[in-house]
Parts: sequence; C-alpha cells; structure tokens
Amino acid sequence: MSRFEQIDYAVEDGIATITLNRPDSGNAFTQIMRRELIEAFDAVDGDDDVRVAIVTGAGKNFCVGADLSGSTPDKPFSYSGAGQSDTQSTPELVDGVPRDGGGMVTLRIAEVRKPVIAAINGAAVGVGVTLTLPMDIRICAESSRFGLVFARRGIIQEAASSWFLPRIVGVSQAMEWVATGRLVPAAEAREGRLVSRVVPDAELLSVARAIAADIVANTSGLSVAAARRMFWSSLSEASPWTAHLHETRIIAALKQAPDAAEGVTSFFEKRAPAFPGRVSSDLPPLPEWPVRPTSLSTGTTEGAQQ
Amino acid sequence: MSRFEQIDYAVEDGIATITLNRPDSGNAFTQIMRRELIEAFDAVDGDDDVRVAIVTGAGKNFCVGADLSGSTPDKPFSYSGAGQSDTQSTPELVDGVPRDGGGMVTLRIAEVRKPVIAAINGAAVGVGVTLTLPMDIRICAESSRFGLVFARRGIIQEAASSWFLPRIVGVSQAMEWVATGRLVPAAEAREGRLVSRVVPDAELLSVARAIAADIVANTSGLSVAAARRMFWSSLSEASPWTAHLHETRIIAALKQAPDAAEGVTSFFEKRAPAFPGRVSSDLPPLPEWPVRPTSLSTGTTEGAQQ
Amino acid sequence: MSRFEQIDYAVEDGIATITLNRPDSGNAFTQIMRRELIEAFDAVDGDDDVRVAIVTGAGKNFCVGADLSGSTPDKPFSYSGAGQSDTQSTPELVDGVPRDGGGMVTLRIAEVRKPVIAAINGAAVGVGVTLTLPMDIRICAESSRFGLVFARRGIIQEAASSWFLPRIVGVSQAMEWVATGRLVPAAEAREGRLVSRVVPDAELLSVARAIAADIVANTSGLSVAAARRMFWSSLSEASPWTAHLHETRIIAALKQAPDAAEGVTSFFEKRAPAFPGRVSSDLPPLPEWPVRPTSLSTGTTEGAQQ
Repeated sequence: MSRFEQIDYAVEDGIATITLNRPDSGNAFTQIMRRELIEAFDAVDGDDDVRVAIVTGAGKNFCVGADLSGSTPDKPFSYSGAGQSDTQSTPELVDGVPRDGGGMVTLRIAEVRKPVIAAINGAAVGVGVTLTLPMDIRICAESSRFGLVFARRGIIQEAASSWFLPRIVGVSQAMEWVATGRLVPAAEAREGRLVSRVVPDAELLSVARAIAADIVANTSGLSVAAARRMFWSSLSEASPWTAHLHETRIIAALKQAPDAAEGVTSFFEKRAPAFPGRVSSDLPPLPEWPVRPTSLSTGTTEGAQQ
Repeated sequence: MSRFEQIDYAVEDGIATITLNRPDSGNAFTQIMRRELIEAFDAVDGDDDVRVAIVTGAGKNFCVGADLSGSTPDKPFSYSGAGQSDTQSTPELVDGVPRDGGGMVTLRIAEVRKPVIAAINGAAVGVGVTLTLPMDIRICAESSRFGLVFARRGIIQEAASSWFLPRIVGVSQAMEWVATGRLVPAAEAREGRLVSRVVPDAELLSVARAIAADIVANTSGLSVAAARRMFWSSLSEASPWTAHLHETRIIAALKQAPDAAEGVTSFFEKRAPAFPGRVSSDLPPLPEWPVRPTSLSTGTTEGAQQ
Repeated sequence: MSRFEQIDYAVEDGIATITLNRPDSGNAFTQIMRRELIEAFDAVDGDDDVRVAIVTGAGKNFCVGADLSGSTPDKPFSYSGAGQSDTQSTPELVDGVPRDGGGMVTLRIAEVRKPVIAAINGAAVGVGVTLTLPMDIRICAESSRFGLVFARRGIIQEAASSWFLPRIVGVSQAMEWVATGRLVPAAEAREGRLVSRVVPDAELLSVARAIAADIVANTSGLSVAAARRMFWSSLSEASPWTAHLHETRIIAALKQAPDAAEGVTSFFEKRAPAFPGRVSSDLPPLPEWPVRPTSLSTGTTEGAQQ
C-alpha cells in the first residue's frame, strides 16, 4: 500500500515506478502531488536498492496540467481547489511569493542521483510536459500529445522550463511550441526531440521497464549519478576547461571506488558486471549548481514603462 | 502607402507583415534596410494591435545577403553602394568601428515583445539567413536554399549568429554549414533544425498567416512577450534556479494581470479566449539581457603572434 | 614516413590526414597516442599549407576506447599497459592528479585554427566518440556504432564531453546515451545529431576528402579560423551582445586583411576564389576561452555525506 495519497510509489527489481494517481482528473497536478513527488524522489535517493525511476500516469493520460478546479476569475490558478488546501503542502515562499510548484519538483529531479525515465501516456499538458524536462529519457505512446499551453491561459511556462527546454530542443523549437500553445502530436514531439521514442500504447510501460532493466543490469550507479550531475552542471559552466578538471578529479576518484575494478574485470571476462558500489556512501564529491539565489530580485529587470 | 523606402510594412488582423522590398536586387541588405527594419520592429512594439510579425521577401528571394554593389577590392564590403550612403542610416560606432548592421537588427528582434515568423522564400544568403535567427518560427518554401557563405567571401558570420546559431541547431551543425559555406537546400535546413517546416512555394505566405492567426486568436500577448524574454534570458543564465525565481515572480504577477482570469474562464467555458491585456501597459517587469558591453574590448583576446 | 609511432600524419592538397594507427588493437587510445595527437594538431596549426584536417582510424575500427591492456582489478584504467609507459607521454598533473588524457586532446582540438573532419569507420567507443566532439564535421560509415560506455565500466564520460556533448546533441540525448551506455547504431547517431551523414563504408574517406577539398578550394582560412573560435567562445558567453561586439571588431579587421578583397572580386567575377591570407600572420585577434582554471577546486562541490 502506497504511503502517498495522489501518487503511487512501488519498487521492484531496482526500479522505482512513480505513478501520478488521480486518473479521474487526468492526474491534474496539485500542491499535494507536488509535495508527494518531491518526497518520492527523496525516497529514490535514499534507497540504494533503487537504481532507476520511471514516472508515468494512471489511466488514460499522463498529466493534463495544473488542477484548475479551485480557480475563479478572481483567483485564477489559485491553490484552493481539490487537493490544494492541505496545509502540509503549502509551498515555500520567496519574498512573500509562493514558489512555483512545478519548479520545486523539477529542481529536485535535476538533483536526483538516479536516472529518471518518463513513460508518457496520453495527454501531457502544461506542467505535465515541463515536469518531465529534467528527466533523462522521455518516451511516449502513439496516442500522446503535448501542450505547452501556457500562453492560451494567460500565464507563462514554468517548472524552470525556460531554462530546461531550450537546452533540450533548441531555443527556436521551444519558442515555436510556446508561442502557439498548440497541441503537438507524438510524431512531432519526437522529431522536435522532446521524446526519443514513440511506442504503441500497449507497450509503453514494458519498453520503459526494459530500458530501466538494462540500466540496472549493466551500469554502475556511481557512474550514472556522477554523469548526470556533470551534464547538468556543465550547462552552467562557461568553459570546457572547468568540465575537464571536474572530470579529471571524478575519474581519479572513481578509479579508487569499488565499481571501476568490477567494470574492467567484467569487461575482460565478457560478462555482465555486478557493481558493488553504493550511491549513499561511495560517490565522490560532485559539482554543485553554481547559483542558488533565494531572492526574487535576481539580476536586473526592466519594467513595462521603461 | 508604406512610410519606408526599402521595406514594406502593413498591419492587418493583428499581424504586421514586414516585406524586404528591393526585389530587383534580391532584397540585398543595405544600411537603409537595416535602419528601416529596426524602425519597423519599433512600430511592432509600439502598437498594441500588432500581436505577431511576419518577415518575408518581395519577389523571388528572401534576401541574397549584404548589398555588395559599392564594394571594390580596396574597400570590400564597404557601405558606399546603392542604398548605403544615406547619412541617416550611418551605423552607430563602437570604439570608432561601425557596429555590424546585421547585429543591430537581430539584437533588436531578440528584444521585440511579439513573436516573429520568418516566411523564407527562395534564397536566403549571408545576413539573409542570420537575420532570421532571433525570430521565433522559421518556415521556408520548397525552392529555398540557405547559404552561410561568409567564409567564401573572406569574412565571418555576423548578426550575432555566433551566439544564436549554435543555440538553435547545435554547435556542430553551425560549424559544418559555416566551415563549408555551401548552399543548403530546404530539406537539409529542416533536418538540421534551421527551419521547422518546408511548404510548397505557393502556400508559404498563407501558412505563415495561418500560424500568425492562430497566435492572435488563441494566445495572450502578455504571455507570449514574457515567454519570449524568458527563453532568451534563460540562455544567459548559469542556473535553472534563476529561471525558477523569475518564473515564480512573473507567474504571480500575471495571475494579477488581466489575461489570466480570461484564460481560466475561457478554458472552463470551452471557447476561444478574448484576452484584454495590453503589452504596453500590463506586462510585469521582465529580466533584461545580463550584459550590454559598449566597448570592443570585451574579454581577453589573443593575437596571431602569441 | 610518419614521424609518429601510433598515428599516421600525411599532408596532401591542403588536407592533413591523421590516422589512428594501432589497427591490431582497434586503435585503442594510449598516452602515446594522446601526446602524438596533440603534436599532430600542433603541426596542423603550424603549417599554413594545411587548410583542413581529417581524423580517421586504420583498419576496421575508428577507436575502441582507452587501452585497458594494463588494467588490473587493483589499478583499473591504469596507464601501465602497451604504449602507456613512455615517460615522454606522462600526462601533466593538476593538484597531483594526472589530467584526463582525452580532455587534453579535445581542448587542443577546440583551439585548432583549421576545421577538423572526423571520418568514423567501424566502432567508436568511449574516448573514440568523445575525441571527435570538438571536431567540426562528423561523418561515419554505415557499419559504425557508437558507445558512450563509461557507466558500464564504473567511470564517467571524459574528454570534456560533459561540456561538449549537450551542446551538440542536447542534454537529454546526451544523458540517454550515457545513462544506458548501450551501443548506438549509425542511423540513430545521425538522427540524434552526433554525425551529420552516414555513407557506405567504401566511400567514407572519399566523401571526407571531397568535403575537405571543397573547403580548401572555396573558403578563406582566416574566415574559418575566426568562425571556429567565435562559435566555441560564444558558447561561453552570457549575452549575444558580446558576440556582436566581437563580430564587429573581427569583421572590421578582416575587411583590411588580404582575403576579403579576393572574396568580393571572385564573387563578382563568378570564379573560385584564390585567397592569399595566411593563418600564421594575417589572423586578427580572436576571443580566448574565458576561463582556464588550473586547480581541481573549481567551484563548490558537495560530498556524498551532505
């Protein structure tokens, strides 16, 4: 039985499957779901037996976007609707403003030490798309469609997707989808590099599990954790020299860590590796995100009147 | 009648169509055209009734590049040719050097508060390509071909394309096209993600107008203006945390702005929105470009002799 | 006769062909090969008659990765194997740690003043892939397959590929290939934008030479050298304004340099150009990489215990 109310969390064979679980509402995103997703990724990081996470949606859709059921013309996108009013789930404030909930989740996912696979079923709209951007592998069902619909609702893209999306699909593709806000079919999402694979609906979860099982069976958790952090942090670095020095240091450390010996031995013995390393204790120091501002006045802004 | 000499500017149904208008010269780029394009985008920004801009070329070609008619072996690429000598159009100097004209236009376009669609007909060569890079959507005709020909003329890519192009197509694709300087057919441009769609020549403008009309009918001008700035500025940001805080602040402000209520209401009423917001007065403060150096000595340089 | 032991270096018609030359070992990468590659690119830069470099592999494979022949469970990935113990090839230390050999080569290639074409035959694994990332054009044979296998050996991606790869293929594609470590066939490498062209095995070298010959015949070496540096450095720049000012300065200088006059004249005379410029003496100052840290403590790090 899941400890969660709006998601399901199950671990089997080294794979944590996190299922958005409000199928009657198209898995619409709430503050409770936001809090529970962060707790689920904390669980992923806290359990050395979890090597990979899969995120998918219960029912017909992945996630139709933020739950607007409490919205009124007076308080659009307010957090007073079903599943929003849980006081435990009140978002942290920054300068008196509640932090964007999607961003709280995606920034958490970007720091997870395990790879994350999005298995996108049916509609992924708004935060249903942006939620998946810091995940490592995105595959979807043939029936999937994607909507970066923010401009059709009078708001903007969130979940730090202003930063993530252009680094995944290029800035023009990002802007084309956001400026129109139109629904994008699965084939266009693949061509535009938002997903890497489109599979028949009935095979979605089994394909995701096969990818996950391959990672569990054949890769070092230390390696993947370090690789993941290096890619994200290198996008924040001005120079390849910085990446080179981080890599030099991390590779030297990993050669002393438990998995490298098994990597070489299993290679010579032409067998699958059995890596002994534990992410909780054997990971060398990794680069941090360089900037974690805590005030909304980050950088110069220009007003409408200027 | 257009107020301009070398371009045409017409507004209809919320769409400003900017037509490069020197068809007998393949719409070769001049200092007058440069000044007029900047004035046209000023007009786009100054008119709340304009929601989208389309840029296209009169006649057979989009733009065959800089007007070289005044060039001589002594003064290659000089600005003394037809349409170059207008004193009103003398480019601003930086440290005594005239600013690159293409860059003056593209940096202006990157700051425009409306989305811009390039409808590329026939040849787009040199500044005819780089001019379009900060535009949001690029589509072209089947007969189009693209030439980043700078290395075949003894100069380099301009219009800040050294910055824009790798962020659109990736650095290897950028360098491959620039290192050879060869003409790239429409299909390769699409595959390489320089354009998102190739359409039959006869349908180019109607497809561009349909995309524009969809934006006018269904999106909030406030949203699109804010989204556009967020994508460009996020490419200048080291960390997704900065984007997250900007988004948090902007979304909170937009919830108070006129369009969010209509966005939610129209969504619940399953009808097209009628957004009341005005970009001139209702836009919350947006992030600025972080750096606007005004001297050519930006950063360390190394000489040929080192 | 080549001056090198583990590579071959030959210049013909302005094209330097650098051949990884340990075919019996799949051109496995050693410290000697690392040193010789750097010396080969020094030769490319030092010879004005070399306009383009091609890198390929002798025999069936491009490069199967680091030479692990000296590795033992005690000293995995140690540099004591065949071709590793040459004292002349001991890598530079940073804070007592030997610099990653792949990174020493890729950082050198990123600074080369000539375009570099990778003609990838057969398998490219580990450093066999990452080595090619700062090259300008990558084509491969139909039989090629690519393996970013680091996580299957207990280490991480190197050669500054944490920085290069996401800027070429996008961060999600980078992470997908690295998180699984699986072999990627040629067609997927092309679709994922790691290579721009897949050609029949028998045509690989002739296609690479035709691309190189086109560059030699039709482009200015000054232009290509400046363009190359501008793209790499612009990826380190926060703002397109910086690129604009660099371009303004470089274009003004190139207009005074020997090649621009020939570029314009040959264009008007509708003939191939014969550019007189020499990269060794006629190149204007170019932007440097902004950061060259020399200590491993670059930026904040977080430990496993935090």
